Amino acid sequence: MKKRSYVCISLLFCLLPLLRAAAQGQDPLPSWNDGPAKLGILNFVKVTTDPASPNFVPPGQRIAAFDQDGTTWVEHPMYTQFIFAFERIVGLAPQHPEWMTTQPFQTVLSGDHAAMARLTMKDLETILIASHTGMTVETFQNIVQDWLAKARDQRWNRPYTDLVYQPMLEVMQYLRANGYKTYIVTGGGQDFVRVYGELVYGIPPEQVIGSALETHYTYDTRGQGILVRPPKLLLNDDFSGKPEDIYLFIGRHPKAAFGNSTGDQQMLEYTQAGGGATLAMIVLHDDARREYAYGPAMGLPDTKIGTFTQSLYDEAKSKGWVVISIKNDWKRIFAWER
Amino acid sequence: MKKRSYVCISLLFCLLPLLRAAAQGQDPLPSWNDGPAKLGILNFVKVTTDPASPNFVPPGQRIAAFDQDGTTWVEHPMYTQFIFAFERIVGLAPQHPEWMTTQPFQTVLSGDHAAMARLTMKDLETILIASHTGMTVETFQNIVQDWLAKARDQRWNRPYTDLVYQPMLEVMQYLRANGYKTYIVTGGGQDFVRVYGELVYGIPPEQVIGSALETHYTYDTRGQGILVRPPKLLLNDDFSGKPEDIYLFIGRHPKAAFGNSTGDQQMLEYTQAGGGATLAMIVLHDDARREYAYGPAMGLPDTKIGTFTQSLYDEAKSKGWVVISIKNDWKRIFAWER
Repeated sequence: MKKRSYVCISLLFCLLPLLRAAAQGQDPLPSWNDGPAKLGILNFVKVTTDPASPNFVPPGQRIAAFDQDGTTWVEHPMYTQFIFAFERIVGLAPQHPEWMTTQPFQTVLSGDHAAMARLTMKDLETILIASHTGMTVETFQNIVQDWLAKARDQRWNRPYTDLVYQPMLEVMQYLRANGYKTYIVTGGGQDFVRVYGELVYGIPPEQVIGSALETHYTYDTRGQGILVRPPKLLLNDDFSGKPEDIYLFIGRHPKAAFGNSTGDQQMLEYTQAGGGATLAMIVLHDDARREYAYGPAMGLPDTKIGTFTQSLYDEAKSKGWVVISIKNDWKRIFAWER
Repeated sequence: MKKRSYVCISLLFCLLPLLRAAAQGQDPLPSWNDGPAKLGILNFVKVTTDPASPNFVPPGQRIAAFDQDGTTWVEHPMYTQFIFAFERIVGLAPQHPEWMTTQPFQTVLSGDHAAMARLTMKDLETILIASHTGMTVETFQNIVQDWLAKARDQRWNRPYTDLVYQPMLEVMQYLRANGYKTYIVTGGGQDFVRVYGELVYGIPPEQVIGSALETHYTYDTRGQGILVRPPKLLLNDDFSGKPEDIYLFIGRHPKAAFGNSTGDQQMLEYTQAGGGATLAMIVLHDDARREYAYGPAMGLPDTKIGTFTQSLYDEAKSKGWVVISIKNDWKRIFAWER
């Protein structure tokens, strides 16, 4: 413990010039409070982009991966994509009278939030498939776009795309300004995120990795080639699926990864396993006043969404992953906050 | 027919300044002879990158997809990756005495080329899986790298990575210089191509889309996260698989696509279906002296590898795809030619 503290203090001294530069109005992370999380990010960029550094990373290998739900935007009280799926089931119900008496649709149509919160992963998968398939990929994109334009969250009465975390947008921009390619690596639907990824995060479709349904190439009535979505999951981009899909899409280890739950654990491990200087960070939701507070490892409620468990916390501590406390590390959470 | 010729002649006149610029030593495609193929490429870049053009394409949407075997490098008399797989089966045989009496391994071990040429796709899949799985992804990469460093092709006695087409490298460079992101979209193995893609084509791993085996995230004896390859195909990136995987990886239509066989037909259709100015080109192997000649649509032999069928030719003609004649369009095929 003593040695560790000494290293921390030395590191703090080395990084004083960075903080001074920040104070002089060149702060690339203005929504972050000074502290180990902010310093960790500044130091990581410094040591991986300075050609004289032993940890220098050539530009082509500068890859940063961000989980989405709970890491770059609000995931409570329910994942946004599930809210979309539930509303779409309600909208489609008139064409499916059998849903009134078939589970899990019956529960969704009942509007009973407590019952909906008890749906199993298998139930949710059934709902996602019923609400996301049987159309061309472009039709699906249009449906999502229309929904996002109209839907408002219950707490702030804002579009869901307003609920992105300003400090994380700053990290993305800062990394990109330093030659990093930023990726979203989400358990959520790849197609769903791609609809707004460029506008909201500045991340183009080809840098969004997510759970994906199969597509099937066929022809429309004019003989034009089209892609339709049969009801079949191709990639489940969560837990072990994250490093597997990172390899499939990118072919190498990220140098930096940001998550907030056990579903990100393997991605953080895999990032660190690449060797050299790496940055692994996890967001802890500990600010009930400004956002939400949950995470059993910290004595906060376990809400089953974005679970920050004791084992994740222990692994983080033992491997030097940095825990981002929303309460302490983020000066401002949303861009529209005063 | 008459109207078509007239359009061609008009187009030729519009493009004369481009040819003149080329003649003045600014030619971005020096290994191409003047003709409709070269003009098609120059014109496509001109109309999609000039902000005043009605067909202007914003930089982020400039995507170009290249098939590999027969399009960017030699595929005859056998796909390079199959040669690798066959040699690896021979190398692994001592650990698998049962292969001496089990098909399709017995055929491969017999060294009977005629019998090997008669192997079915199912046989080849068995061979690919046996030779490509059961190890970490890094081990596989090292095996491919070692093989490529030593292996020589039979006709020119050169490393297989020397057998890339110089005119296609020039097209890739020219497109990149004009803001296009170049992708390999191959029926071959994604992992295999990623080993040399950056060095040979200037295409990084994340822009190589190919047939892919599953990976499985697990831990090594030190508890380090690793990816191993179980014997299971995840993506078959050929025929309809090409547009499906382009959508999975890129999320949008390419603006330009280059192929040479029926396995590329759907990718070319899908590219054109994106609308606006598009470029769809197919390489015809009609130069037995300098390379190989095959393709039943042109009265050349059907060798079952890279099949240029009558239906592909008819579709190309009816949809305005440009056929690249190696004999007529390419001044030089390989960089090392005198």
